[in-house]
Amino acid sequence: MANPLSKAKLSAYRKLQSKKIRESEDRFLIEGWHLLEEAMVGGVPLQAVIYDETRELEGNDLRVKNMAIGRSAAVFAASESQIRALSDTQTSPGVIAAVGRVRSDLDGVLSALGGKERSFVVALDGVSDPGNCGSIIRACDWFGADAVLLGMGCSEVENGKFVRATMGALFHLPLAKVESLPNSLKDLQDNGYRIVTSSLGESESLSGFDWPSKTVLVIGNEARGVSQRVLNLADTRLQIPKFGRGESLNAAMAASVMLGHWRV
Amino acid sequence: MANPLSKAKLSAYRKLQSKKIRESEDRFLIEGWHLLEEAMVGGVPLQAVIYDETRELEGNDLRVKNMAIGRSAAVFAASESQIRALSDTQTSPGVIAAVGRVRSDLDGVLSALGGKERSFVVALDGVSDPGNCGSIIRACDWFGADAVLLGMGCSEVENGKFVRATMGALFHLPLAKVESLPNSLKDLQDNGYRIVTSSLGESESLSGFDWPSKTVLVIGNEARGVSQRVLNLADTRLQIPKFGRGESLNAAMAASVMLGHWRV
Repeated sequence: MANPLSKAKLSAYRKLQSKKIRESEDRFLIEGWHLLEEAMVGGVPLQAVIYDETRELEGNDLRVKNMAIGRSAAVFAASESQIRALSDTQTSPGVIAAVGRVRSDLDGVLSALGGKERSFVVALDGVSDPGNCGSIIRACDWFGADAVLLGMGCSEVENGKFVRATMGALFHLPLAKVESLPNSLKDLQDNGYRIVTSSLGESESLSGFDWPSKTVLVIGNEARGVSQRVLNLADTRLQIPKFGRGESLNAAMAASVMLGHWRV
Repeated sequence: MANPLSKAKLSAYRKLQSKKIRESEDRFLIEGWHLLEEAMVGGVPLQAVIYDETRELEGNDLRVKNMAIGRSAAVFAASESQIRALSDTQTSPGVIAAVGRVRSDLDGVLSALGGKERSFVVALDGVSDPGNCGSIIRACDWFGADAVLLGMGCSEVENGKFVRATMGALFHLPLAKVESLPNSLKDLQDNGYRIVTSSLGESESLSGFDWPSKTVLVIGNEARGVSQRVLNLADTRLQIPKFGRGESLNAAMAASVMLGHWRV
């Protein structure tokens, strides 16, 4: 059922550590039994599963491995050093999989939203740190946001740090990478959405804010905030009131506070 | 006014990259004009300021440099390569300072809280990632929490990543490292505080929760959550309700959501 991993195959999968190759081949690597399970549950195409043959598995990991063997196009039993070569973490969890594209486009998101009466979309306007982007997706998944748009300048969805920070959330909700965030936001406005930006200065306070039934919440770049073109089309510029001495909040934490306020 | 940085001095300051040396010498390094300014505003003792003599400064950076020259016990003009050797970032902002101890102990925190009618303390129970710990301090500073306790197993306050993630907040509010978090929490209970833990399972929902006038909010370890000994003495176990499919929230984001709920 599992074949050994040849040098040529190792080299082919290892190339997916490069962003350029991930883009041209339209696939990427994920690590760990948990992410693999989430990918399968999310219905993401599994192209290959490569596991460390020297490890004894039990419990949930073993269950996930057996499930993956039934679902993956190819399964390879690799040596510890092959796994190390493929891993981009310091201590690999012992399994790496190559999976097909997850992200969608604006049309995909609009059709997923369908005719919902109430919905909440989060848009990232140049959030560049993969850990921040991934954590925001994780919080969106927790609070039940309906979809996430990523504008230019955001971290690559297929980046290893991004994927790990989502803890699998990227397989749970529609993610779209869009060429022009302002144009996509206009399309959403045409579909009845109100654009709410997280902003400092000349903004409405989050205290007592009444979230529109169809909201797009825009989170801006870590240093520059939301871009001027997006601010110009905002229906509401919203800020988290400050009570202490801090100068700013981290983008992911600001997003969490806003999501928490919306839901809780 | 500024001396060149001798080999011996460079080596002495460089040793502060080691946790052991930071502990034994009771001082640590900070990087960047912004952090340096925050340290001065916070009244932290400046032992040495070392700046890259090849860089032209203007605006706020120049202003901070001149302020530091007046305040630091020693000032050194260093070469680019000396700064690189001292820096623990990939692209150093061109200034590094050695500063004295920031953290306090439980007595220090209790006396800072004084006889306040209302106060809010955040306690970290084994939050081990320096970025998470630092981001939580930053959010505490934004929302105006009164103090932070760090139990065993938390990131070291003087760690470079921790310091950077706080964005200077560690110079704004009392931080105490405590030997036994359960004992410190009992002391706080004796002083009228209620212990609220962030927990999953068998917990009260954050929705509609009425925060006690004197609260200690406990945030647990990234993987294991709040420890059993702390859970046992909690007045309230509180959870952020889940609306989507996520399995958990990042510790720093959970803390932000709770802080936001308390204040906003």
